[in-house]
Amino acid sequence: MQRYKLTIEYRGTDYAGWQRQKDARSIQQEIEEAIFAFSGQDATIHAAGRTDAGVHARGQVAHVDLSPLKKPMDPFEITKAINAFLIEKSISVLSAEPVEEDFHARFAAQNKLYIYRILNRPALAALEKNLVWHVKQPLDVRAMHEAAQILTGYHDFTTFRGSQCQAKSPERTLDRLDIYERPYDSCGGCEIIIEAEARSFLHHQVRNMVGTLSLIGLGKWTAKNLGDALKACDRTQGGPSAPAAGLYLVRVDY
Amino acid sequence: MQRYKLTIEYRGTDYAGWQRQKDARSIQQEIEEAIFAFSGQDATIHAAGRTDAGVHARGQVAHVDLSPLKKPMDPFEITKAINAFLIEKSISVLSAEPVEEDFHARFAAQNKLYIYRILNRPALAALEKNLVWHVKQPLDVRAMHEAAQILTGYHDFTTFRGSQCQAKSPERTLDRLDIYERPYDSCGGCEIIIEAEARSFLHHQVRNMVGTLSLIGLGKWTAKNLGDALKACDRTQGGPSAPAAGLYLVRVDY
Repeated sequence: MQRYKLTIEYRGTDYAGWQRQKDARSIQQEIEEAIFAFSGQDATIHAAGRTDAGVHARGQVAHVDLSPLKKPMDPFEITKAINAFLIEKSISVLSAEPVEEDFHARFAAQNKLYIYRILNRPALAALEKNLVWHVKQPLDVRAMHEAAQILTGYHDFTTFRGSQCQAKSPERTLDRLDIYERPYDSCGGCEIIIEAEARSFLHHQVRNMVGTLSLIGLGKWTAKNLGDALKACDRTQGGPSAPAAGLYLVRVDY
Repeated sequence: MQRYKLTIEYRGTDYAGWQRQKDARSIQQEIEEAIFAFSGQDATIHAAGRTDAGVHARGQVAHVDLSPLKKPMDPFEITKAINAFLIEKSISVLSAEPVEEDFHARFAAQNKLYIYRILNRPALAALEKNLVWHVKQPLDVRAMHEAAQILTGYHDFTTFRGSQCQAKSPERTLDRLDIYERPYDSCGGCEIIIEAEARSFLHHQVRNMVGTLSLIGLGKWTAKNLGDALKACDRTQGGPSAPAAGLYLVRVDY
């Protein structure tokens, strides 16, 4: 068997999430079926992060073990062979690299970068519908960034933990949470970008942090409210969850 | 009557182009129907550039004349009222501004900026399917940019003119044609951006220039080939037309 590290881009809108499900199309299933279609092998792939329905990836990482192929193929040919069965899908394998058999996409990950995109303007998203979270009220980006620094470092993130989170511990180290804006259109609309880096995240952690920080951007919450919510270690003390559409798994480092 | 200048964003994928057609949905028709729905007025809108099927806009400009509304509305309320009937569409009005009655979206335009996006990597576009032109062979961006400068200035652009072009003269002044790249993913994929500015363009001019420049990027053509093609004033001497999906009307200046 040879283990491969796959780097994958997808548009999450069209799927019920990464993980295989009984009654809905998942990204995992599409890729496993494409691998079967080219190799005849019924392989299971393991991802660095099992993204939810609607969440996108620019650089998801997964690993898969393949038995020797009837016709030997180099990694570039394997990438092309998988993609040949994904042409009609919103999924693209960017690279396949042979790795040691102890490489594990999830457990060996040293760092993950998630980006969250908010389209901040009165008019709905037309070009990038389902690719951003649309917030029509103006957000104070500087206040959001300054308050966000309260969340960096080692904390109990229970306040930002999804109810279905299966992690043993709610404690995580958030290495970076930067928020900035850039112009989006010529009518004053802007895009707000939230970059979050950590070795691992709790389920829904980024979306729950972004939703809570939006309250600060709207002037409904102060930085002190955020600090109090974090200390409360109680999900009901946190703000709402931001929609899946704005979230991207951008990079996983090993 | 009060004339309004509308600035509009749309995803061209879902429409047969800007202009009204008998048997297909157009962007013009969608907006005119939305204006009728909120105002009861059967108004015709005139755009700065009648984009083709599949071509996108981040800042199309159109004008429309409205009779006094039963309930007076300020421009921001008019914008919201039109957008309320475009929610399910891939069209968003970014702003409505009252203008003098001699303002004409097409004839008063002083400058237009089109951007063309090429996704240059082996793997197909997943996240931005229909929003870029995918070219899998590596393109030499510097060679493309240098050769592109042959096209700037005042020329007879017959070589890059679409067969259905209705312009009286094939002569235009191309003020700027800049080509550069930026990283797109973490696997070496990059995005090539072509920015074209002029007071006006011939039909298919940008797509035909981009398609021809791609031959230079691939090493199939030299800059001299491009100069000879331009001088030939013959469409059959130009390269192929690049797909609509990569083209954006970004800004119109008055």
